[in-house]
Amino acid sequence: MADIITASMIVIGDEILSGRTKDKNIGHLADVMTAIGIDLKEVRIVPDDEDEIVAAVNALRAHTTYLFTTGGIGPTHDDITADSVSKAFGVPCDYDERAYAMLEAHYAARGIEFTEARKRMARMPRGATHIDNPVSLAPGFNIGNVYVMAGVPAIFQAMLDNVVPGLKTGQKLLSATVHCPFGEGTIGGPLGEIQKAFPDTIIGSYPKYLDGAFWTELVVRARSQEVLDEAAAAVQAMVDGLGPKPD
Amino acid sequence: MADIITASMIVIGDEILSGRTKDKNIGHLADVMTAIGIDLKEVRIVPDDEDEIVAAVNALRAHTTYLFTTGGIGPTHDDITADSVSKAFGVPCDYDERAYAMLEAHYAARGIEFTEARKRMARMPRGATHIDNPVSLAPGFNIGNVYVMAGVPAIFQAMLDNVVPGLKTGQKLLSATVHCPFGEGTIGGPLGEIQKAFPDTIIGSYPKYLDGAFWTELVVRARSQEVLDEAAAAVQAMVDGLGPKPD
Repeated sequence: MADIITASMIVIGDEILSGRTKDKNIGHLADVMTAIGIDLKEVRIVPDDEDEIVAAVNALRAHTTYLFTTGGIGPTHDDITADSVSKAFGVPCDYDERAYAMLEAHYAARGIEFTEARKRMARMPRGATHIDNPVSLAPGFNIGNVYVMAGVPAIFQAMLDNVVPGLKTGQKLLSATVHCPFGEGTIGGPLGEIQKAFPDTIIGSYPKYLDGAFWTELVVRARSQEVLDEAAAAVQAMVDGLGPKPD
Repeated sequence: MADIITASMIVIGDEILSGRTKDKNIGHLADVMTAIGIDLKEVRIVPDDEDEIVAAVNALRAHTTYLFTTGGIGPTHDDITADSVSKAFGVPCDYDERAYAMLEAHYAARGIEFTEARKRMARMPRGATHIDNPVSLAPGFNIGNVYVMAGVPAIFQAMLDNVVPGLKTGQKLLSATVHCPFGEGTIGGPLGEIQKAFPDTIIGSYPKYLDGAFWTELVVRARSQEVLDEAAAAVQAMVDGLGPKPD
Protein backbone atom coordinates (compact mmCIF):
# COMPACT_ATOMS: atom_id res chain seq x y z
CA MET A 1 0.00 0.00 0.00
CA ALA A 2 1.28 3.46 -0.86
CA ASP A 3 2.34 5.78 1.93
CA ILE A 4 -0.10 8.31 3.26
CA ILE A 5 1.13 11.70 2.11
CA THR A 6 -0.08 14.69 4.09
CA ALA A 7 -0.08 18.44 3.61
CA SER A 8 -0.76 21.58 5.57
CA MET A 9 -1.21 25.20 4.55
CA ILE A 10 -0.53 28.62 5.99
CA VAL A 11 -2.43 31.59 4.58
CA ILE A 12 -0.49 34.72 5.45
CA GLY A 13 -2.14 38.11 5.52
CA ASP A 14 -3.90 40.68 7.67
CA GLU A 15 -6.31 41.29 4.81
CA ILE A 16 -7.83 37.81 5.16
CA LEU A 17 -8.22 38.16 8.93
CA SER A 18 -9.83 41.59 8.60
CA GLY A 19 -12.34 40.27 6.07
CA ARG A 20 -11.24 42.75 3.43
CA THR A 21 -10.09 39.94 1.17
CA LYS A 22 -11.96 36.63 1.07
CA ASP A 23 -9.57 33.72 0.71
CA LYS A 24 -9.93 31.73 -2.50
CA ASN A 25 -6.79 29.63 -2.17
CA ILE A 26 -7.74 27.21 0.61
CA GLY A 27 -10.54 25.63 -1.39
CA HIS A 28 -8.33 25.39 -4.48
CA LEU A 29 -5.46 23.73 -2.62
CA ALA A 30 -7.92 21.36 -0.94
CA ASP A 31 -9.37 20.34 -4.30
CA VAL A 32 -5.93 19.81 -5.86
CA MET A 33 -4.61 17.81 -2.90
CA THR A 34 -7.67 15.56 -2.88
CA ALA A 35 -7.34 15.03 -6.63
CA ILE A 36 -3.75 13.82 -6.31
CA GLY A 37 -4.23 11.71 -3.20
CA ILE A 38 -2.62 13.96 -0.59
CA ASP A 39 -4.47 14.48 2.70
CA LEU A 40 -4.73 18.15 3.67
CA LYS A 41 -4.58 17.93 7.47
CA GLU A 42 -4.62 21.52 8.71
CA VAL A 43 -4.82 25.10 7.52
CA ARG A 44 -3.85 28.16 9.52
CA ILE A 45 -4.51 31.78 8.65
CA VAL A 46 -1.98 34.05 10.37
CA PRO A 47 -1.31 37.80 10.32
CA ASP A 48 1.66 39.63 8.76
CA ASP A 49 3.69 39.08 11.93
CA GLU A 50 7.09 37.41 11.84
CA ASP A 51 6.80 35.57 15.15
CA GLU A 52 3.39 34.16 14.22
CA ILE A 53 4.57 33.05 10.79
CA VAL A 54 7.75 31.43 12.15
CA ALA A 55 5.78 29.56 14.82
CA ALA A 56 3.20 28.30 12.33
CA VAL A 57 5.84 27.25 9.77
CA ASN A 58 7.81 25.30 12.34
CA ALA A 59 4.71 23.68 13.84
CA LEU A 60 3.28 22.53 10.53
CA ARG A 61 6.38 21.59 8.55
CA ALA A 62 7.25 19.08 11.30
CA HIS A 63 3.75 17.66 11.24
CA THR A 64 2.97 16.98 7.58
CA THR A 65 4.80 15.77 4.46
CA TYR A 66 4.38 19.13 2.74
CA LEU A 67 3.59 22.66 3.86
CA PHE A 68 2.26 25.22 1.39
CA THR A 69 2.08 28.92 2.13
CA THR A 70 0.28 31.70 0.29
CA GLY A 71 0.76 35.42 0.60
CA GLY A 72 3.37 37.93 1.66
CA ILE A 73 5.93 37.49 -1.12
CA GLY A 74 5.47 40.80 -2.91
CA PRO A 75 7.67 43.90 -2.78
CA THR A 76 6.10 45.89 0.05
CA HIS A 77 7.03 46.30 3.70
CA ASP A 78 4.30 43.94 4.85
CA ASP A 79 5.61 41.13 2.63
CA ILE A 80 7.68 39.29 5.21
CA THR A 81 7.18 35.67 4.25
CA ALA A 82 10.73 35.16 2.84
CA ASP A 83 12.30 36.59 6.00
CA SER A 84 10.00 34.58 8.26
CA VAL A 85 10.58 31.27 6.47
CA SER A 86 14.34 31.91 6.53
CA LYS A 87 14.14 32.49 10.26
CA ALA A 88 12.10 29.32 10.70
CA PHE A 89 14.84 27.36 8.91
CA GLY A 90 17.65 29.24 10.64
CA VAL A 91 19.25 30.38 7.37
CA PRO A 92 19.97 33.86 5.99
CA CYS A 93 17.49 35.56 3.67
CA ASP A 94 19.59 36.69 0.70
CA TYR A 95 19.07 37.99 -2.78
CA ASP A 96 18.86 34.90 -4.94
CA GLU A 97 21.30 35.44 -7.79
CA ARG A 98 19.15 33.95 -10.52
CA ALA A 99 15.95 35.66 -9.35
CA TYR A 100 17.79 38.97 -9.06
CA ALA A 101 19.23 38.71 -12.59
CA MET A 102 15.89 37.65 -14.02
CA LEU A 103 13.98 40.52 -12.41
CA GLU A 104 16.73 43.01 -13.29
CA ALA A 105 16.65 41.98 -16.97
CA HIS A 106 12.85 41.99 -16.98
CA TYR A 107 12.58 45.55 -15.69
CA ALA A 108 15.48 46.79 -17.85
CA ALA A 109 13.78 45.43 -20.98
CA ARG A 110 10.63 47.36 -20.08
CA GLY A 111 12.47 50.54 -19.09
CA ILE A 112 11.18 50.28 -15.52
CA GLU A 113 13.34 51.19 -12.55
CA PHE A 114 14.55 48.18 -10.55
CA THR A 115 13.66 49.71 -7.21
CA GLU A 116 14.66 48.46 -3.77
CA ALA A 117 11.08 47.31 -3.37
CA ARG A 118 11.23 45.25 -6.58
CA LYS A 119 14.57 43.80 -5.50
CA ARG A 120 12.83 42.47 -2.38
CA MET A 121 11.06 39.97 -4.59
CA ALA A 122 14.42 38.31 -5.35
CA ARG A 123 15.05 37.55 -1.67
CA MET A 124 14.65 34.00 -0.42
CA PRO A 125 16.14 31.67 2.18
CA ARG A 126 19.64 30.52 1.29
CA GLY A 127 19.39 27.12 -0.37
CA ALA A 128 15.84 27.60 -1.65
CA THR A 129 14.90 26.72 -5.22
CA HIS A 130 12.53 28.68 -7.44
CA ILE A 131 8.88 28.06 -8.08
CA ASP A 132 8.27 29.60 -11.46
CA ASN A 133 5.67 32.31 -11.77
CA PRO A 134 4.38 32.45 -15.34
CA VAL A 135 2.03 35.32 -14.55
CA SER A 136 4.18 38.06 -13.07
CA LEU A 137 7.73 36.68 -13.05
CA ALA A 138 8.69 37.08 -9.36
CA PRO A 139 9.25 33.49 -8.23
CA GLY A 140 7.98 31.62 -5.23
CA PHE A 141 10.38 29.20 -3.60
CA ASN A 142 10.80 25.78 -2.08
CA ILE A 143 12.97 24.99 0.91
CA GLY A 144 12.87 21.60 2.61
CA ASN A 145 9.25 20.50 2.54
CA VAL A 146 7.90 24.06 2.44
CA TYR A 147 6.51 25.66 -0.73
CA VAL A 148 6.08 29.41 -0.59
CA MET A 149 3.67 30.87 -3.13
CA ALA A 150 1.83 34.07 -3.97
CA GLY A 151 -1.50 35.10 -2.45
CA VAL A 152 -3.06 36.46 -5.64
CA PRO A 153 -5.20 33.49 -6.71
CA ALA A 154 -4.23 33.49 -10.40
CA ILE A 155 -0.55 33.43 -9.48
CA PHE A 156 -0.97 30.91 -6.67
CA GLN A 157 -2.77 28.55 -9.00
CA ALA A 158 -0.08 28.89 -11.68
CA MET A 159 2.68 28.28 -9.14
CA LEU A 160 0.89 25.28 -7.68
CA ASP A 161 0.57 23.81 -11.18
CA ASN A 162 4.37 24.02 -11.37
CA VAL A 163 4.81 22.38 -7.97
CA VAL A 164 2.39 19.46 -8.24
CA PRO A 165 4.35 17.32 -10.74
CA GLY A 166 7.27 17.16 -8.29
CA LEU A 167 5.25 15.98 -5.29
CA LYS A 168 5.06 12.45 -4.00
CA THR A 169 1.41 11.59 -4.24
CA GLY A 170 -0.46 9.13 -2.12
CA GLN A 171 -2.98 6.53 -2.96
CA LYS A 172 -5.95 8.64 -3.83
CA LEU A 173 -8.74 8.69 -1.30
CA LEU A 174 -11.72 7.51 -3.29
CA SER A 175 -15.15 8.82 -2.43
CA ALA A 176 -18.79 8.02 -3.04
CA THR A 177 -21.68 10.30 -2.25
CA VAL A 178 -25.14 9.20 -1.17
CA HIS A 179 -27.91 11.76 -1.23
CA CYS A 180 -30.12 11.50 1.81
CA PRO A 181 -33.43 13.39 1.93
CA PHE A 182 -33.48 13.18 5.73
CA GLY A 183 -31.74 15.31 8.30
CA GLU A 184 -28.93 14.09 10.50
CA GLY A 185 -31.20 13.43 13.45
CA THR A 186 -32.86 10.61 11.52
CA ILE A 187 -29.75 8.95 10.14
CA GLY A 188 -27.16 9.75 12.80
CA GLY A 189 -27.61 6.53 14.77
CA PRO A 190 -27.58 3.97 11.91
CA LEU A 191 -24.80 5.88 10.12
CA GLY A 192 -22.60 5.60 13.20
CA GLU A 193 -23.20 1.82 13.16
CA ILE A 194 -22.10 1.65 9.52
CA GLN A 195 -18.96 3.64 10.37
CA LYS A 196 -18.16 1.11 13.10
CA ALA A 197 -18.72 -1.79 10.68
CA PHE A 198 -16.33 -0.25 8.12
CA PRO A 199 -13.34 1.02 10.10
CA ASP A 200 -11.21 1.49 6.96
CA THR A 201 -13.56 4.16 5.67
CA ILE A 202 -14.23 7.72 6.69
CA ILE A 203 -17.94 8.42 6.57
CA GLY A 204 -18.92 12.05 6.65
CA SER A 205 -22.34 13.55 7.06
CA TYR A 206 -22.84 17.07 5.76
CA PRO A 207 -26.08 18.71 6.75
CA LYS A 208 -27.68 20.98 4.21
CA TYR A 209 -30.39 23.42 5.03
CA LEU A 210 -32.61 24.81 2.36
CA ASP A 211 -35.99 26.51 2.51
CA GLY A 212 -36.73 25.35 6.02
CA ALA A 213 -35.89 21.70 5.47
CA PHE A 214 -32.81 19.65 6.21
CA TRP A 215 -31.27 17.09 3.96
CA THR A 216 -27.89 15.44 4.18
CA GLU A 217 -25.04 14.58 1.88
CA LEU A 218 -23.37 11.39 3.04
CA VAL A 219 -19.82 10.90 1.81
CA VAL A 220 -17.91 7.67 2.15
CA ARG A 221 -14.13 7.77 1.65
CA ALA A 222 -11.72 4.86 1.40
CA ARG A 223 -8.45 4.00 -0.30
CA SER A 224 -9.77 0.69 -1.61
CA GLN A 225 -12.48 0.65 -4.27
CA GLU A 226 -13.86 -2.61 -2.91
CA VAL A 227 -14.19 -1.32 0.64
CA LEU A 228 -15.67 1.92 -0.69
CA ASP A 229 -18.30 0.09 -2.74
CA GLU A 230 -19.32 -2.09 0.19
CA ALA A 231 -19.61 0.77 2.64
CA ALA A 232 -21.43 3.03 0.16
CA ALA A 233 -23.89 0.23 -0.57
CA ALA A 234 -24.55 -0.11 3.16
CA VAL A 235 -25.20 3.62 3.45
CA GLN A 236 -27.49 3.59 0.40
CA ALA A 237 -29.42 0.62 1.83
CA MET A 238 -29.82 2.46 5.12
CA VAL A 239 -31.22 5.53 3.34
CA ASP A 240 -33.52 3.42 1.14
CA GLY A 241 -34.77 1.62 4.24
CA LEU A 242 -36.08 4.90 5.62
CA GLY A 243 -38.65 5.07 2.84
CA PRO A 244 -39.80 8.24 1.09
CA LYS A 245 -39.61 11.45 3.05
CA PRO A 246 -43.00 12.63 4.33
CA ASP A 247 -44.10 15.99 2.95
CA MET B 1 -7.92 54.05 25.38
CA ALA B 2 -10.05 50.93 25.16
CA ASP B 3 -8.44 47.52 25.50
CA ILE B 4 -7.47 45.62 22.40
CA ILE B 5 -9.85 42.68 22.17
CA THR B 6 -8.74 39.71 20.12
CA ALA B 7 -10.39 36.65 18.66
CA SER B 8 -9.43 33.39 17.03
CA MET B 9 -11.44 30.78 15.16
CA ILE B 10 -11.35 27.04 14.63
CA VAL B 11 -13.19 25.61 11.63
CA ILE B 12 -13.82 21.93 12.31
CA GLY B 13 -14.48 19.48 9.52
CA ASP B 14 -12.91 17.01 7.12
CA GLU B 15 -15.21 18.33 4.40
CA ILE B 16 -13.46 21.71 4.36
CA LEU B 17 -10.00 20.11 4.19
CA SER B 18 -11.04 17.78 1.38
CA GLY B 19 -12.40 20.67 -0.67
CA ARG B 20 -15.89 19.16 -0.80
CA THR B 21 -17.32 22.10 1.11
CA LYS B 22 -15.94 25.59 0.61
CA ASP B 23 -15.88 27.50 3.88
CA LYS B 24 -18.12 30.55 4.05
CA ASN B 25 -17.82 31.25 7.76
CA ILE B 26 -14.27 32.61 8.03
CA GLY B 27 -15.01 35.63 5.88
CA HIS B 28 -18.26 36.30 7.74
CA LEU B 29 -16.64 36.13 11.18
CA ALA B 30 -13.79 38.34 9.94
CA ASP B 31 -16.25 40.96 8.69
CA VAL B 32 -18.27 40.92 11.92
CA MET B 33 -15.19 41.10 14.16
CA THR B 34 -13.78 44.03 12.17
CA ALA B 35 -17.14 45.79 12.35
CA ILE B 36 -17.25 45.59 16.15
CA GLY B 37 -13.60 46.40 16.77
CA ILE B 38 -12.27 42.94 17.64
CA ASP B 39 -9.00 41.84 16.02
CA LEU B 40 -9.22 38.38 14.50
CA LYS B 41 -5.68 37.06 15.05
CA GLU B 42 -5.68 33.52 13.77
CA VAL B 43 -7.88 30.90 12.12
CA ARG B 44 -7.23 27.17 12.04
CA ILE B 45 -9.04 24.57 10.00
CA VAL B 46 -8.74 21.14 11.62
CA PRO B 47 -10.11 17.69 10.81
CA ASP B 48 -12.77 15.73 12.72
CA ASP B 49 -10.13 14.37 15.08
CA GLU B 50 -10.42 14.75 18.84
CA ASP B 51 -6.72 15.19 19.56
CA GLU B 52 -6.38 17.85 16.87
CA ILE B 53 -9.45 19.75 18.07
CA VAL B 54 -8.38 19.62 21.72
CA ALA B 55 -4.88 20.87 20.85
CA ALA B 56 -6.21 23.72 18.73
CA VAL B 57 -8.81 24.77 21.34
CA ASN B 58 -6.25 24.86 24.12
CA ALA B 59 -3.68 26.70 22.00
CA LEU B 60 -6.05 29.41 20.81
CA ARG B 61 -8.24 29.98 23.86
CA ALA B 62 -5.10 30.84 25.84
CA HIS B 63 -3.94 33.23 23.14
CA THR B 64 -6.93 35.45 22.37
CA THR B 65 -9.80 37.09 24.24
CA TYR B 66 -12.38 34.95 22.44
CA LEU B 67 -12.31 31.70 20.49
CA PHE B 68 -15.11 30.85 18.08
CA THR B 69 -15.57 27.41 16.57
CA THR B 70 -17.77 26.27 13.70
CA GLY B 71 -18.77 22.74 12.78
CA GLY B 72 -19.16 19.34 14.33
CA ILE B 73 -22.15 19.95 16.62
CA GLY B 74 -24.75 17.88 14.79
CA PRO B 75 -26.12 14.44 15.69
CA THR B 76 -23.79 12.14 13.73
CA HIS B 77 -20.75 10.10 14.78
CA ASP B 78 -18.35 12.60 13.21
CA ASP B 79 -19.79 15.46 15.28
CA ILE B 80 -17.27 15.42 18.11
CA THR B 81 -16.89 19.10 18.93
CA ALA B 82 -18.79 18.95 22.26
CA ASP B 83 -16.68 16.00 23.45
CA SER B 84 -13.46 17.63 22.28
CA VAL B 85 -14.18 21.00 23.90
CA SER B 86 -15.17 19.21 27.14
CA LYS B 87 -11.85 17.37 27.06
CA ALA B 88 -9.99 20.61 26.41
CA PHE B 89 -11.61 22.11 29.52
CA GLY B 90 -11.23 18.93 31.55
CA VAL B 91 -14.95 18.66 32.31
CA PRO B 92 -17.50 15.92 31.55
CA CYS B 93 -19.64 16.13 28.42
CA ASP B 94 -23.19 15.58 29.68
CA TYR B 95 -26.71 15.93 28.44
CA ASP B 96 -27.66 19.51 29.20
CA GLU B 97 -30.99 19.34 31.01
CA ARG B 98 -32.55 22.36 29.35
CA ALA B 99 -31.34 21.44 25.86
CA TYR B 100 -32.54 17.88 26.34
CA ALA B 101 -36.00 18.98 27.46
CA MET B 102 -36.27 21.52 24.65
CA LEU B 103 -35.30 19.03 21.96
CA GLU B 104 -37.51 16.31 23.48
CA ALA B 105 -40.55 18.63 23.47
CA HIS B 106 -39.75 19.83 19.96
CA TYR B 107 -39.64 16.33 18.49
CA ALA B 108 -42.65 15.16 20.52
CA ALA B 109 -44.73 18.07 19.18
CA ARG B 110 -43.84 17.05 15.64
CA GLY B 111 -44.33 13.31 16.23
CA ILE B 112 -40.68 12.60 15.45
CA GLU B 113 -38.71 9.99 17.35
CA PHE B 114 -36.16 11.48 19.77
CA THR B 115 -33.38 9.15 18.65
CA GLU B 116 -30.03 8.62 20.35
CA ALA B 117 -28.51 10.62 17.48
CA ARG B 118 -30.84 13.58 18.14
CA LYS B 119 -30.12 13.33 21.85
CA ARG B 120 -26.42 13.87 21.02
CA MET B 121 -27.28 17.47 20.12
CA ALA B 122 -28.19 18.10 23.78
CA ARG B 123 -24.69 17.19 24.97
CA MET B 124 -22.30 19.93 26.04
CA PRO B 125 -19.48 20.49 28.51
CA ARG B 126 -20.68 20.69 32.09
CA GLY B 127 -21.06 24.36 33.01
CA ALA B 128 -21.64 25.57 29.45
CA THR B 129 -24.44 27.98 28.60
CA HIS B 130 -26.60 27.88 25.49
CA ILE B 131 -26.19 29.83 22.29
CA ASP B 132 -29.67 29.95 20.85
CA ASN B 133 -30.25 28.55 17.41
CA PRO B 134 -33.31 30.20 15.87
CA VAL B 135 -32.98 28.15 12.68
CA SER B 136 -32.96 24.53 13.75
CA LEU B 137 -33.31 24.59 17.54
CA ALA B 138 -30.21 22.54 18.60
CA PRO B 139 -28.15 25.05 20.57
CA GLY B 140 -24.50 25.94 20.37
CA PHE B 141 -22.76 26.67 23.64
CA ASN B 142 -20.36 28.93 25.45
CA ILE B 143 -17.81 27.80 28.02
CA GLY B 144 -15.14 30.13 29.33
CA ASN B 145 -14.06 32.28 26.40
CA VAL B 146 -15.00 29.65 23.82
CA TYR B 147 -18.13 29.90 21.65
CA VAL B 148 -19.12 26.71 19.85
CA MET B 149 -21.40 27.18 16.86
CA ALA B 150 -22.78 25.31 13.89
CA GLY B 151 -20.97 24.92 10.57
CA VAL B 152 -24.00 25.44 8.34
CA PRO B 153 -23.58 29.11 7.37
CA ALA B 154 -27.20 30.20 7.95
CA ILE B 155 -27.13 28.71 11.44
CA PHE B 156 -23.65 29.96 12.25
CA GLN B 157 -24.65 33.49 11.29
CA ALA B 158 -27.81 33.34 13.39
CA MET B 159 -25.88 32.01 16.40
CA LEU B 160 -23.19 34.65 16.00
CA ASP B 161 -25.87 37.35 15.95
CA ASN B 162 -26.94 36.03 19.36
CA VAL B 163 -23.38 36.03 20.69
CA VAL B 164 -22.17 39.44 19.53
CA PRO B 165 -24.22 41.62 21.92
CA GLY B 166 -22.54 39.91 24.89
CA LEU B 167 -18.96 40.43 23.74
CA LYS B 168 -16.59 43.07 25.00
CA THR B 169 -15.73 45.08 21.95
CA GLY B 170 -12.60 47.04 21.30
CA GLN B 171 -12.00 50.44 19.90
CA LYS B 172 -12.85 49.90 16.29
CA LEU B 173 -9.94 49.78 13.92
CA LEU B 174 -10.77 52.53 11.42
CA SER B 175 -9.64 52.14 7.84
CA ALA B 176 -9.17 54.22 4.73
CA THR B 177 -8.53 52.86 1.26
CA VAL B 178 -6.43 54.53 -1.41
CA HIS B 179 -6.72 53.20 -4.94
CA CYS B 180 -3.33 52.96 -6.62
CA PRO B 181 -3.10 52.35 -10.36
CA PHE B 182 0.48 51.10 -10.00
CA GLY B 183 1.79 47.72 -8.94
CA GLU B 184 3.60 47.04 -5.70
CA GLY B 185 7.04 47.26 -7.29
CA THR B 186 6.50 50.95 -7.91
CA ILE B 187 5.08 51.92 -4.55
CA GLY B 188 6.72 49.40 -2.23
CA GLY B 189 9.65 51.61 -1.26
CA PRO B 190 7.84 54.89 -0.53
CA LEU B 191 4.98 53.03 1.15
CA GLY B 192 7.44 51.42 3.56
CA GLU B 193 8.72 54.90 4.43
CA ILE B 194 5.18 56.07 5.18
CA GLN B 195 4.63 53.03 7.40
CA LYS B 196 7.79 53.96 9.33
CA ALA B 197 6.61 57.56 9.68
CA PHE B 198 3.23 56.43 11.07
CA PRO B 199 4.00 53.63 13.54
CA ASP B 200 0.50 53.71 15.06
CA THR B 201 -1.04 52.65 11.77
CA ILE B 202 -1.09 49.35 9.91
CA ILE B 203 -0.61 49.99 6.21
CA GLY B 204 -1.47 47.10 3.96
CA SER B 205 -0.84 46.75 0.27
CA TYR B 206 -3.06 44.33 -1.62
CA PRO B 207 -1.96 43.55 -5.14
CA LYS B 208 -4.69 43.03 -7.69
CA TYR B 209 -4.12 41.46 -11.03
CA LEU B 210 -6.56 41.99 -13.82
CA ASP B 211 -6.26 41.54 -17.58
CA GLY B 212 -2.48 41.47 -17.56
CA ALA B 213 -1.98 44.56 -15.43
CA PHE B 214 -1.33 45.07 -11.75
CA TRP B 215 -2.90 47.66 -9.55
CA THR B 216 -2.89 47.95 -5.81
CA GLU B 217 -5.36 48.64 -3.06
CA LEU B 218 -3.64 50.46 -0.23
CA VAL B 219 -5.38 50.23 3.12
CA VAL B 220 -4.46 52.31 6.13
CA ARG B 221 -5.78 51.19 9.52
CA ALA B 222 -5.59 53.05 12.81
CA ARG B 223 -7.58 53.39 16.01
CA SER B 224 -7.46 57.18 15.92
CA GLN B 225 -9.32 59.11 13.21
CA GLU B 226 -6.72 61.86 13.27
CA VAL B 227 -3.78 59.51 12.78
CA LEU B 228 -5.72 57.67 10.09
CA ASP B 229 -6.45 60.85 8.17
CA GLU B 230 -2.83 61.99 8.30
CA ALA B 231 -1.41 58.66 7.17
CA ALA B 232 -4.02 58.19 4.43
CA ALA B 233 -3.28 61.69 3.15
CA ALA B 234 0.43 60.81 2.98
CA VAL B 235 -0.37 57.67 1.01
CA GLN B 236 -2.67 59.56 -1.35
CA ALA B 237 0.03 62.21 -1.90
CA MET B 238 2.55 59.49 -2.67
CA VAL B 239 0.23 57.95 -5.27
CA ASP B 240 -0.63 61.33 -6.77
CA GLY B 241 3.08 62.12 -7.00
CA LEU B 242 3.60 59.17 -9.32
CA GLY B 243 1.54 60.89 -11.99
CA PRO B 244 -0.83 59.17 -14.39
CA LYS B 245 -0.11 55.56 -15.23
CA PRO B 246 1.47 55.15 -18.68
CA ASP B 247 -0.63 53.13 -21.11
